[in-house]
Amino acid sequence: MTRPPVIIVNFKTFAEATGERAVSLAKLCEDVSEEHDAGIAVAPQAPDIFRVSSAVDIPVYAQHIDWIQAGSYTGHVLAECVREAGATGTLINHSERRLSLADIDSCIRAARRTGLMTVVCTNNIATTAAAAGLNPDFVAIEPPELIGSGVPVSNANPDIVKSSVEAAKRVAPDVEVLCGAGISKGEDVRAALALGTSGVLLASGVVRAKDQRSALLDLAGGVSRA
Amino acid sequence: MTRPPVIIVNFKTFAEATGERAVSLAKLCEDVSEEHDAGIAVAPQAPDIFRVSSAVDIPVYAQHIDWIQAGSYTGHVLAECVREAGATGTLINHSERRLSLADIDSCIRAARRTGLMTVVCTNNIATTAAAAGLNPDFVAIEPPELIGSGVPVSNANPDIVKSSVEAAKRVAPDVEVLCGAGISKGEDVRAALALGTSGVLLASGVVRAKDQRSALLDLAGGVSRA
Amino acid sequence: MTRPPVIIVNFKTFAEATGERAVSLAKLCEDVSEEHDAGIAVAPQAPDIFRVSSAVDIPVYAQHIDWIQAGSYTGHVLAECVREAGATGTLINHSERRLSLADIDSCIRAARRTGLMTVVCTNNIATTAAAAGLNPDFVAIEPPELIGSGVPVSNANPDIVKSSVEAAKRVAPDVEVLCGAGISKGEDVRAALALGTSGVLLASGVVRAKDQRSALLDLAGGVSRA
Amino acid sequence: MTRPPVIIVNFKTFAEATGERAVSLAKLCEDVSEEHDAGIAVAPQAPDIFRVSSAVDIPVYAQHIDWIQAGSYTGHVLAECVREAGATGTLINHSERRLSLADIDSCIRAARRTGLMTVVCTNNIATTAAAAGLNPDFVAIEPPELIGSGVPVSNANPDIVKSSVEAAKRVAPDVEVLCGAGISKGEDVRAALALGTSGVLLASGVVRAKDQRSALLDLAGGVSRA
Repeated sequence: MTRPPVIIVNFKTFAEATGERAVSLAKLCEDVSEEHDAGIAVAPQAPDIFRVSSAVDIPVYAQHIDWIQAGSYTGHVLAECVREAGATGTLINHSERRLSLADIDSCIRAARRTGLMTVVCTNNIATTAAAAGLNPDFVAIEPPELIGSGVPVSNANPDIVKSSVEAAKRVAPDVEVLCGAGISKGEDVRAALALGTSGVLLASGVVRAKDQRSALLDLAGGVSRA
Repeated sequence: MTRPPVIIVNFKTFAEATGERAVSLAKLCEDVSEEHDAGIAVAPQAPDIFRVSSAVDIPVYAQHIDWIQAGSYTGHVLAECVREAGATGTLINHSERRLSLADIDSCIRAARRTGLMTVVCTNNIATTAAAAGLNPDFVAIEPPELIGSGVPVSNANPDIVKSSVEAAKRVAPDVEVLCGAGISKGEDVRAALALGTSGVLLASGVVRAKDQRSALLDLAGGVSRA
Repeated sequence: MTRPPVIIVNFKTFAEATGERAVSLAKLCEDVSEEHDAGIAVAPQAPDIFRVSSAVDIPVYAQHIDWIQAGSYTGHVLAECVREAGATGTLINHSERRLSLADIDSCIRAARRTGLMTVVCTNNIATTAAAAGLNPDFVAIEPPELIGSGVPVSNANPDIVKSSVEAAKRVAPDVEVLCGAGISKGEDVRAALALGTSGVLLASGVVRAKDQRSALLDLAGGVSRA
Repeated sequence: MTRPPVIIVNFKTFAEATGERAVSLAKLCEDVSEEHDAGIAVAPQAPDIFRVSSAVDIPVYAQHIDWIQAGSYTGHVLAECVREAGATGTLINHSERRLSLADIDSCIRAARRTGLMTVVCTNNIATTAAAAGLNPDFVAIEPPELIGSGVPVSNANPDIVKSSVEAAKRVAPDVEVLCGAGISKGEDVRAALALGTSGVLLASGVVRAKDQRSALLDLAGGVSRA
């Protein structure tokens, strides 16, 4: 069984997606997700997970967890804590929050122990193959030079997406691949799916859009099962 | 005007202070704080700040913030976000979450910009003097070898506490000094205050106490204005 | 063509293998290597690479390189610099010097660009598979709990070694696997080779041995082609 | 007794100052230093310290040391090792190699234990005051926005230099202050000295100069005792 296509909206630490505005944006994502039968998940900042997950019924992801278990770790993000706050998944190793190889592996184990879906972010084909070797649920390939560029990776570099899917599947047939960087339109999402991905990871394309609702509607058109 | 003595309870990522149990422990701290007219603040994990601050009226501190401003920073802790979640202060540079000197300075500026009180943690007299040079509200000296030891720093090494207070005041007369490591009893708090500190920072002495309420009552006896 | 078995002696920052003593130990390794026709390489500290490589004809490895290219990077280790100092290979991602996944990949590329052999250190089967996906020359599996223990991994946990070899070869058939942690005797080396590895990575077993020459002779007996 | 003015040339990982070219540039610095009776020190990459210090009689500084003592630390820079390789001082906490506050303190202690002069780099007035609290030999203030800019800090922002000197002296009267960022001419050095510094720290202004000798001669004119 293949999971339906997914759009993960990373709220980063954008002012437009902090606190009350994180809740509003998550509700917008929920509305569009329901109207269009599209799988949209949101990844708010850690302090916003609880209030966001209390307000919506779509999947809420953490942006990061640490490799730790419960114990003496100040200022760390415990998988069990984000889970109890309502998250059902987590990004791991985003390009803005790189982790050591050993810690990525430990985070995947911590997430699995806690029942969180895992999305490991990577930057090229080789690291996608490597991440797949750790058996996360998803690997999200994001060429760093395209992040926040407005130039969609599925357009600028379809080969890196296609080869990443192939490399990941060769190492771990069950892992699913997302792509990110520069995604902002439904056609970008369709292109990404046509290249073998299971969806997209994006941020500024929605969060910083002049009209967040329109941006979401356009994107949802790209994955809609309707 | 001197601020009243303060007890900051760091919840770390202890299972006993995660999620619902963070809320319960914070309520316990609030009860004891009110009964004894003692200043108790709590520092829960980032995902718990909102629910804890919604449940209690005592000060809630973040355990960590990052040096960043709003923007493209995934998995980072934005001062504005913890502030909006209800925190009124933050620990910075805890021994379990060390920061570069430049980042400590930036975190203090981020906190000030946002209206968060700052508690910079240090490990010896020299780093206490250095931290005081950055003008935070508090410096908290915690000799690493005593953290979690059950041996109170105010007893094991009164000189380091006294000399830290002197070194900090020489650099920045307005900065207040806390001490931590091994603190678990009211007499430890009284000893710390006698050495010139404005209070204590502690964690396992309360969080992992067999009877959290009794532990808090004993501590509060050490700072009580009653 | 398979490379001959190899013993890599990591000098770490042990006093017994710093400066003049690094040169002496490297010469001892060279003597034993020649007498026993055994492949022994040494990995001294960066400031010792030049004098060690000037003194011996066995392979000299760096303990670490950074992901960088020539440019504005203070306090970093440039692949070209260690190459010109005489190194012919480098450890990458040692358990005492962990790197992000993206940086391991960049270090392998930097090493390849410069003509350095690459040995990526890993801590378990999953990370060995992941590292193999990056196509280094060697992956060296070292269970952290056995490092410096005196208990040889080939004995304490033969399964992790065997499964690591299988996992690595499945991802990248040409990659060779070393094992480390607790290795100090020729029989440990023989056991490691029997489990499918191409050799061993060790440190204290030689460097801190009461009699370094005897320790090397015993080890060399395990890989000797004589 | 005041130390004579000093010019520290940071070789970074520039190709123009790696390996043989590090030795050549160091010899050039030595020539100019002798001709003009100017104090010039060089800071080559760690693998080049031995060959550089073997070739010249001017002070050789490491670009970085780690906080460690001799022991099980792979890929770290041991103070004793750079000392034995011929270094007589070290940069600490350069903007391209930031360290935690606790580690800066430990590095200063490691350097002192080993007989290395210490130059702690800082980015503004507050961190200069903080660094002075750790009692290094020198603090070098380098506003990050001017590093490599060609715009000399002594010109672009004389106030930050002057206030840094005052702040440092207030905390630790014996500490000497250098300034850096954008320095490339003798007049920049004279301006820096006039603002109360004991010299300058620079890199690209010499290393990447079209004519390194001319650049050094111009700089030396600014500190010459002749």
